[in-house]
Amino acid sequence: MDAGEDAVDAGASRVRRLAARDPFVRSLGIECVDGGDGRATTRLHVRREHVNFNGGCHGGVIFALADTAFGLASNSHGRLASGIEAHIGFHVGVREGDVLTARANEISRGNKLATYRIDITRADATLVASFSGTVYVSSRSNA
Amino acid sequence: MDAGEDAVDAGASRVRRLAARDPFVRSLGIECVDGGDGRATTRLHVRREHVNFNGGCHGGVIFALADTAFGLASNSHGRLASGIEAHIGFHVGVREGDVLTARANEISRGNKLATYRIDITRADATLVASFSGTVYVSSRSNA
Amino acid sequence: MDAGEDAVDAGASRVRRLAARDPFVRSLGIECVDGGDGRATTRLHVRREHVNFNGGCHGGVIFALADTAFGLASNSHGRLASGIEAHIGFHVGVREGDVLTARANEISRGNKLATYRIDITRADATLVASFSGTVYVSSRSNA
Amino acid sequence: MDAGEDAVDAGASRVRRLAARDPFVRSLGIECVDGGDGRATTRLHVRREHVNFNGGCHGGVIFALADTAFGLASNSHGRLASGIEAHIGFHVGVREGDVLTARANEISRGNKLATYRIDITRADATLVASFSGTVYVSSRSNA
Repeated sequence: MDAGEDAVDAGASRVRRLAARDPFVRSLGIECVDGGDGRATTRLHVRREHVNFNGGCHGGVIFALADTAFGLASNSHGRLASGIEAHIGFHVGVREGDVLTARANEISRGNKLATYRIDITRADATLVASFSGTVYVSSRSNA
Repeated sequence: MDAGEDAVDAGASRVRRLAARDPFVRSLGIECVDGGDGRATTRLHVRREHVNFNGGCHGGVIFALADTAFGLASNSHGRLASGIEAHIGFHVGVREGDVLTARANEISRGNKLATYRIDITRADATLVASFSGTVYVSSRSNA
Repeated sequence: MDAGEDAVDAGASRVRRLAARDPFVRSLGIECVDGGDGRATTRLHVRREHVNFNGGCHGGVIFALADTAFGLASNSHGRLASGIEAHIGFHVGVREGDVLTARANEISRGNKLATYRIDITRADATLVASFSGTVYVSSRSNA
Repeated sequence: MDAGEDAVDAGASRVRRLAARDPFVRSLGIECVDGGDGRATTRLHVRREHVNFNGGCHGGVIFALADTAFGLASNSHGRLASGIEAHIGFHVGVREGDVLTARANEISRGNKLATYRIDITRADATLVASFSGTVYVSSRSNA
């Protein structure tokens, strides 16, 4: 096994460990289904408790799913990264029973700042929302 | 009582009714503490279940609190309004035990589109996050 | 030639026509180098007049380059589309002498609303900025 | 004169100096009409060269006006501040002949990051666009 494979494994296992210790992720029912250096994928079955007053999935739930993938991807390198700002576009309504997947990818990374794009799709691959976010990367470990 | 007072009362009671029938708002513990035409205020006590893997309040919780005020303010006029997009800046970390208040105000309103700014403050009045969002206003009632 | 090829040609020639009649695009020195249904690419040589008080390329210039690709891509289908909102992230500084390219792609399109992502790169392919924007699509022609 | 008045004067004169040495601001016709610690106001008469292919003011011009106020306000304290990201909402169309004013105010300021809100109004006080942006503050002087 070479150093490159080790690095990938380190990112993947770090993302799993971080997701497992997140109380809000557990309380909302979000699963982390994949991760690695600079990337993470989260999933959610939209249930009755995620619905808003108009009967569709609450925007806060869709954001939380994407924000979780963003937080895991940006912390995958081992340094503590905190969200500075995020933008989300809601393209298609989401209903109870839908299964949503959020895939985060690093699009830019400097020493102090890094930016991620997250696509949120339904099981039929329709893009239901798009998210971008920036983190500030501290010098501390997130272990 | 004149027509102006009636309109204010209609907006305030509509915001209360909408908040009361929102499953996600109840499951997260968000309260609607004020409302009226084009405005709404929500509140949350940050508890253990709202915390992320780094021990601070999850960004998705702060967004959900603001997004709820945004959804109520934009639906206060009686027509069904759906969020198109939102932007949030996270300025100061939030911890378990903090009490957050999100105040939404309408800054622009046309026939089909309207925009809102939401300030999220801690009990000591520090601005912890700022949010802006745009809705598409349908011709249907949200009753 | 089949109907699909006709449609592609119609989009491409519409994008070229719209770019050619835009006074601001000409005054800033932006070129439209490619276009088609739901997409457009613009280019700019950063000159002395595009620089800000700190000696780097002004953020307004980078935004204008991306916003132009966004406006052309969203008007490529023939209906008048107006920008509602846009978000831009600035990842890497840009200097006088750099050549910037902005590529706009449609990521979601409904009857009234559509969303585009624009990547802004330097000649060495570095992503210097990322942009997303939403338009409201009217029923009128932009011919 | 006390220390507080000195500080206000220092911010105001720094904003004026920075605006005067900005090539893009001059080439676009933007004036800086006010400034101080954490704030700046810019103005523009919309002329023929600012118009887009649909005959309205180009979104890039409105952004550039706001971004200039943002850049001046965030550099008013004397340390070099660079824009990380910005969001703009376009609420009302702008035409040739309109006079636009952009007012930037600091809403949050830490050691490394600061956030500003900019309102863009027409001469009749209508809010035509709203902008928010975040800067990274370096330890270097912008003198």
